Amino acid sequence: MQHNAKVLFAGLGSMGALMARNLIGKGFTVYGMDVNAEAVRALHAESGTPVLSGPEAARACDFAILMVVNAAQAEDVLFDKQVAANMRQGAIVLLMATCSPAEARRIGGRVTDMGLRFVDAPVSGGMAGARAGTLSIMAGAAEETWELARPVLEALGERLCHAGTEPGQGAAVKAINQLLCGTHIAVAAEAFSLAKKAGLDPRMVFEVVSNSAASSWMLRDRGPRMLSDGEDVASAIDIFVKDLGIVVAAGAEYKAAVPLASVALQMFSSASGRGEGKRDDSKVIRGYDLLNGLDG
Amino acid sequence: MQHNAKVLFAGLGSMGALMARNLIGKGFTVYGMDVNAEAVRALHAESGTPVLSGPEAARACDFAILMVVNAAQAEDVLFDKQVAANMRQGAIVLLMATCSPAEARRIGGRVTDMGLRFVDAPVSGGMAGARAGTLSIMAGAAEETWELARPVLEALGERLCHAGTEPGQGAAVKAINQLLCGTHIAVAAEAFSLAKKAGLDPRMVFEVVSNSAASSWMLRDRGPRMLSDGEDVASAIDIFVKDLGIVVAAGAEYKAAVPLASVALQMFSSASGRGEGKRDDSKVIRGYDLLNGLDG
Repeated sequence: MQHNAKVLFAGLGSMGALMARNLIGKGFTVYGMDVNAEAVRALHAESGTPVLSGPEAARACDFAILMVVNAAQAEDVLFDKQVAANMRQGAIVLLMATCSPAEARRIGGRVTDMGLRFVDAPVSGGMAGARAGTLSIMAGAAEETWELARPVLEALGERLCHAGTEPGQGAAVKAINQLLCGTHIAVAAEAFSLAKKAGLDPRMVFEVVSNSAASSWMLRDRGPRMLSDGEDVASAIDIFVKDLGIVVAAGAEYKAAVPLASVALQMFSSASGRGEGKRDDSKVIRGYDLLNGLDG
Repeated sequence: MQHNAKVLFAGLGSMGALMARNLIGKGFTVYGMDVNAEAVRALHAESGTPVLSGPEAARACDFAILMVVNAAQAEDVLFDKQVAANMRQGAIVLLMATCSPAEARRIGGRVTDMGLRFVDAPVSGGMAGARAGTLSIMAGAAEETWELARPVLEALGERLCHAGTEPGQGAAVKAINQLLCGTHIAVAAEAFSLAKKAGLDPRMVFEVVSNSAASSWMLRDRGPRMLSDGEDVASAIDIFVKDLGIVVAAGAEYKAAVPLASVALQMFSSASGRGEGKRDDSKVIRGYDLLNGLDG
């Protein structure tokens, strides 16, 4: 299906650039915004669309997508850079960055107070999902807004979940998703470090536990990287410092204990504190190995 | 393949009774031992083999399998009930109960000092695997002993893993398997309790996280039971009180930190302390719900 709606797309990082190109491929007219001017130029050189300023693009567009790093950057684009103030009444802001539920609710409140519509719509699926247009998207949005936003979301993702009608509910589902993902990575590292201390071949242990009730998606995906010396980065440790931080914030906000996620966060935080935040998140095993005297 | 070896089988509980019947079905002659005399009578009534005392069976058998609850019961059968002392030199003892690596090594040492062979061979796969003969078996055994024991192990299990040549190495792999299984159950409960506190439909959240990178075997298996009021017991909370206790003991023995498994153990221990140890292990979510003011 081809579309002709116009989309302001803020945040042309590793995932955002792929998502913006997906929209262009499906017929949307996309105006890019990024602190990196070269990323904007490259996108527009490909699409042949003229580069517009934030306010100009905001006036032209039906949708503004925020695929920036965090809530502070989203607020900078929307409010400091005057994007929200220049959108037509009833236009739709989609916050796709991972924010805490409270942040998503705060931004959503300001946006709707200005007469715009708001979708809190974080994503999961990484660069592979961004490239293929197969992201999982978890959204909090009023029913009518959800229906209006569907063509854009369907161009970007495959599994669309309308988590609820309130801003923050998409962020809450994403936080729960990341609670599981981050803890599963850390516990896999805990298991393999114990295996090494017990004198077992960790690859043999991987073979057993990845084919038993002990398995997880993360164990199967990150396990081989935990046991290799490679330095390829599929997803950085700092992503989980941020995302498990949001999990703990969500726990505080909703008054729920998250003891396992809190412990997992310590392992990612300490890796970042050792200056390893840009390494692959599978390297969280190094913290266990250091604790156990296996390394360093 | 039909066998004619003779097997003393101690521990005819829910899994052991099914395993003993599997051996009989594949041609082994099996002599049962259990504190429950009725379980022994029922097995022998089916097979038509006369009931023998422990020492009599020990003298007749090539293998002794211990599928009892723990190391103390295994030592009672082997040493107090004189099974080991009555086996012929070179006969094989298979310890299939879940014990700590140190316990498996201690029992193995005593058994081999008496001129017998020893296989530390804990299993995974539950009653379904026991019934179908598809258990995973993780073994620590000298090379020659492993080869001699294979026909028995192949009659009981499908995935055989020779973890190493030392007693205790099978137990260590099982401990690592249970570290992952127990923590995955607890973190799924943590996620669903947070979902409820955030006002989300937990079944919608299950749908999202069981189809994303957040998934685990345990999440998919136990998740629906966590969200139902059913009281069917597939595996009891007390099993993980025991098994995560073994994980923490293995961590202490090998001098490895197991922070996530330690926290998970607290959730199972406290459930047992509330008198809920016989309930299904998915009910570990009740601890989170109580902490969060959702229940009780």
